[in-house]
Amino acid sequence: MAFNMNDIIFKKREGGRLSREEIHYWITGYVAGDIPDYQVSALLMAIFFRGLDREETFNLTTAMRYSGDTIDLSPINGIKVDKHSTGGVGDKTTLIVAPLASACGVPIAKMSGRGLGFTGGTVDKMESIPGFRTAMEPEEFLSQVNKIGMAVIGQTAHITPADKKLYALRDVTATVDNFGLIASSIMSKKLAAGSDAIVLDVKCGDGAFMENLEDAVTLANLMVDIGTDAGRKTVAAITDMSQPLGKAVGNSLEVIEAIETLKGKGPADITELAEKLSGIMIYLGGKASDPDEGYAMAGKALADGSGLAQLGRFIEAQGGNPAVIDDYSLFPQASVMDELKAEKDGYVEEIAARTIGLASQHTGAGRATKESSIDLSAGVYLHKKVGDKVTAGDTLAVFYGNDRAKVDAAVAEAKKAFKITDKTCERPVLIKEIIGLEE
Amino acid sequence: MAFNMNDIIFKKREGGRLSREEIHYWITGYVAGDIPDYQVSALLMAIFFRGLDREETFNLTTAMRYSGDTIDLSPINGIKVDKHSTGGVGDKTTLIVAPLASACGVPIAKMSGRGLGFTGGTVDKMESIPGFRTAMEPEEFLSQVNKIGMAVIGQTAHITPADKKLYALRDVTATVDNFGLIASSIMSKKLAAGSDAIVLDVKCGDGAFMENLEDAVTLANLMVDIGTDAGRKTVAAITDMSQPLGKAVGNSLEVIEAIETLKGKGPADITELAEKLSGIMIYLGGKASDPDEGYAMAGKALADGSGLAQLGRFIEAQGGNPAVIDDYSLFPQASVMDELKAEKDGYVEEIAARTIGLASQHTGAGRATKESSIDLSAGVYLHKKVGDKVTAGDTLAVFYGNDRAKVDAAVAEAKKAFKITDKTCERPVLIKEIIGLEE
Repeated sequence: MAFNMNDIIFKKREGGRLSREEIHYWITGYVAGDIPDYQVSALLMAIFFRGLDREETFNLTTAMRYSGDTIDLSPINGIKVDKHSTGGVGDKTTLIVAPLASACGVPIAKMSGRGLGFTGGTVDKMESIPGFRTAMEPEEFLSQVNKIGMAVIGQTAHITPADKKLYALRDVTATVDNFGLIASSIMSKKLAAGSDAIVLDVKCGDGAFMENLEDAVTLANLMVDIGTDAGRKTVAAITDMSQPLGKAVGNSLEVIEAIETLKGKGPADITELAEKLSGIMIYLGGKASDPDEGYAMAGKALADGSGLAQLGRFIEAQGGNPAVIDDYSLFPQASVMDELKAEKDGYVEEIAARTIGLASQHTGAGRATKESSIDLSAGVYLHKKVGDKVTAGDTLAVFYGNDRAKVDAAVAEAKKAFKITDKTCERPVLIKEIIGLEE
Repeated sequence: MAFNMNDIIFKKREGGRLSREEIHYWITGYVAGDIPDYQVSALLMAIFFRGLDREETFNLTTAMRYSGDTIDLSPINGIKVDKHSTGGVGDKTTLIVAPLASACGVPIAKMSGRGLGFTGGTVDKMESIPGFRTAMEPEEFLSQVNKIGMAVIGQTAHITPADKKLYALRDVTATVDNFGLIASSIMSKKLAAGSDAIVLDVKCGDGAFMENLEDAVTLANLMVDIGTDAGRKTVAAITDMSQPLGKAVGNSLEVIEAIETLKGKGPADITELAEKLSGIMIYLGGKASDPDEGYAMAGKALADGSGLAQLGRFIEAQGGNPAVIDDYSLFPQASVMDELKAEKDGYVEEIAARTIGLASQHTGAGRATKESSIDLSAGVYLHKKVGDKVTAGDTLAVFYGNDRAKVDAAVAEAKKAFKITDKTCERPVLIKEIIGLEE
């Protein structure tokens, strides 16, 4: 059947439903270079206004999923479970949940990304471990999972080229912030990456793409629907990103915090989130008969050190030096430090996550553009979190880096993030909702 | 001030008003090649959904108007009046109103276009006159108007390049049918063409771009507003295009009908329209103190042959053979003819203009694409119009061309245009509304 892109744009503009064939036509045509950017951007804008229904969203996801290579994880035994975060500040969760779930027998064969702007990426964080490699051949990747139960690699170039091309176009045509397009973008990559079940951590708040709960719930439901329609068990947790997660923001700082957490000494929020998400992963991976059993198993793997041991095996398998676990001085070191102190007594009412993310970027820990290089030692460490009591002169945060001007800029930025009030403040609820989990 | 195209798209997407500077930025950047098609098409789609207010529409028109050359008609004495039709089937009005108004002292320095699809263009029609040239240098154009009161040329390449580029993009991104974009496209060309006053003939019905009265009124008001904001007296007549205008459709056939009309022997509808529009032009040109005086002057110029004489001078000045006025055999001749006859007695209820336009295109008279060549002798001549009584066997229409298969296809197409009914039928009201004319 012959399609015409102008007709497809017109149909969507008038509120019509695009068929599976029409969606397949324009996605494959776009990737092949037969359909020009200017028609696709007009269609994206029409989609922005008219939306995509469940079936269209699924079909778009599927077309993007198969637009390039897909990963076949069938050589790995067991139910492979993936975990994805929509991105936030201080989000080192993968470095904790992957070892915990894998210590409990769930094979983890994960592809991760790099950070951009005020959000970090797991690949950057892992690279702060001396010797660690995030690039490997597929056979090596598969055999490592079969051997030690876990592997994490950077995203390969040939996964979902349609998504890459579309995202680049959306980025310059004011069509990024549409639920259907965001959900299909994320899920096309997750489905191409081949796991059998997917746990989504949808961040919600000032430091996340979804700034309010309603939007986060909408996005989470869309992604759970797509995963379900694709025959994958998919669960989404909506979690707080009004303040940074944990206390460390910055690559090596976050890896150290992940290690501390696996040692049972991590901040309360990241510990709670890690147990919850890895518990769900353990359940979806068939290693627990219900989520509660999964949570208990995750808690045990944390308490008995088996999660930490698994992290060590993982680091070693990917060429990293596992001695970092006991000797943090092996991480890249900052030469410049500064502190932000409280100016008055009171309680921490707010630590704007986005502002801390920007401050961390200022230290050198984050990228302004995809091409920027980053300082793996740089970042921000929060000594106080929302709800904490402070006395004038207390250290609120410490800043690390290798460039005095950058660290100064970070301190100035971070100052705007803190609100101190006279009255006691509640800590934000960390896990706001879980979607797609039938217990 | 530095602008960013993505921000401009976002602003319009969110329903914001684009400033004069923002509009100027993207139009000039687009013409210069600094802003890519894909950002402009996304903006156009956002404009489709969010619209443009009066000031934005005016600013867009102005930015396009000045994107290339503009015509300076100041060397011509008097108030120059332009006339524009939004396009229809059998619309040879310019060939009648320009001589009538100019015979009454209104200088006409007009730029006209070619036909595309089922609508014709004045330039093509004039080229059916042997020897006629529609291309000339600006000095020649101006001096001809000063000498004989009238000149018509084809659109030059450097007029409103922004409109050309935008229109080509809209054509392949389903963003043609938006009032603000249509109005600014037409008016940017009219304003660049330099006349002091503008009479717009907004066609309405099956054979026009605006199919219903409401849409035609909307478009007419927008164009009158733009013209007014630009300091030009602008009047719009909304006229019927449910059936073809007059009886002739096709290039030489229409020129012959225009000549017949100037001889006082034209069909009633085209005669009525020509007197009305040229009357308004005479009034706007300051040669009549009110529109009624203008109509009377136009009627007199038609009755006393001064309009016809002016057509002869015009043809001769542009290199054409004025003998065509008395000898129609000098026009290109068709070698193939066919007829469509009535199958039953009754009254003509409908002659779908678009279908007749397509039939005329089938004969070879119209272009399928801008590059198509046309047969100047080909076309359709209607022997009956809506409201006429017919007897089985009467000729409804005659078809002319030089290719039997094409003419056969035209007859088959035209057959669908006619509806014959048992009851008497009213003739459609020709002039539905006049906007912008304070008497």
